[in-house]
Amino acid sequence: MADTDIGDIEHLIAMMAKLPGLGPRSARRAVLHMIRKRALVLTPLADSLGRVAETARECLNCGNVGTSDICGICADETRANGEICVVEDVSDLWAMERSGVFKGRYHVLGGTLSALDAVGPEDLRIPRLVDRVAAEAVSEVILALNATIDGQTTAHYIADQLGGQVKLTSLAQGVPVGGELDYLDDGTITAAMMARKEI
Amino acid sequence: MADTDIGDIEHLIAMMAKLPGLGPRSARRAVLHMIRKRALVLTPLADSLGRVAETARECLNCGNVGTSDICGICADETRANGEICVVEDVSDLWAMERSGVFKGRYHVLGGTLSALDAVGPEDLRIPRLVDRVAAEAVSEVILALNATIDGQTTAHYIADQLGGQVKLTSLAQGVPVGGELDYLDDGTITAAMMARKEI
Repeated sequence: MADTDIGDIEHLIAMMAKLPGLGPRSARRAVLHMIRKRALVLTPLADSLGRVAETARECLNCGNVGTSDICGICADETRANGEICVVEDVSDLWAMERSGVFKGRYHVLGGTLSALDAVGPEDLRIPRLVDRVAAEAVSEVILALNATIDGQTTAHYIADQLGGQVKLTSLAQGVPVGGELDYLDDGTITAAMMARKEI
Repeated sequence: MADTDIGDIEHLIAMMAKLPGLGPRSARRAVLHMIRKRALVLTPLADSLGRVAETARECLNCGNVGTSDICGICADETRANGEICVVEDVSDLWAMERSGVFKGRYHVLGGTLSALDAVGPEDLRIPRLVDRVAAEAVSEVILALNATIDGQTTAHYIADQLGGQVKLTSLAQGVPVGGELDYLDDGTITAAMMARKEI
């Protein structure tokens, strides 16, 4: 058996199988699909991956991923200045952008503080955030970290760092839109009740 | 917003999302993972895809996919001659190879006969199979098509074409290894009973 013959395709399948969300079976399906549709799928995908491999990088300003040193959002002059939305991860930034509700600028921490995992403020973009608040005439910092223990702990730390310098807000916690009480956990129901608003 | 900046990464995500087994969320996860591990994951994957895009092709002899005109199995002199295992699809060939039970050679039809979809024998590798049986001193043709209506219909057609020229066999149908009767469908239980063997 010629080693390079089977090897290249099996090698591709093995690599695809390690991607999050894929396993051996779905990797085999995907690669066979790509090979069958070489011009429509495989070659464009190979080109795109090659391009992203060469150019993808984190924005020096906010930590978003893009293909230049300053990401499209930081470079966008039409976005509102003065408001910075702080998130844990690029995937959270993308989620916020999909909602379309926020027109300001972002700051991606790159995770949350964790004593267990030895992640300190300098391992996240917290010093950079403090610098930005001082330098960018920021009127509001929205803490849009996850509603988890680590997320809220990190939010409190940031609030301590920035307290008094700028208006600080955080996302409301409560019943998700479309949510039914019978399916919610006690913590969410409690938070929703504690933060009830007069109508 | 710079179009090429967001565009390349979003474009990659959109293409990944169309692969079988992947959707928008898993594509975003996979691409972020790749970007974070550029040297370990993204670049090797881009290289591998590029190689496969250039070299992947179907074996001229049997229809398997590989990176040369004659696949590794057809080119392997250590494999048994005289036995051809006929399958519908390359994924079935791979499944048979994973089991390790078959040491002969393969023939991939590329699908099944279908009047509804206008798939005739010449649209599959059936004429090629008939030629191989004549040319390769074949002692047995194993019909390893799927136990579906289309698979069995196609197997019957092939049996008609080859009947008398060569010994024809097909895979046993019955209880899957590890299978419990209470979870099986009536058809499988029926087939297992009809094909019962004396112990």
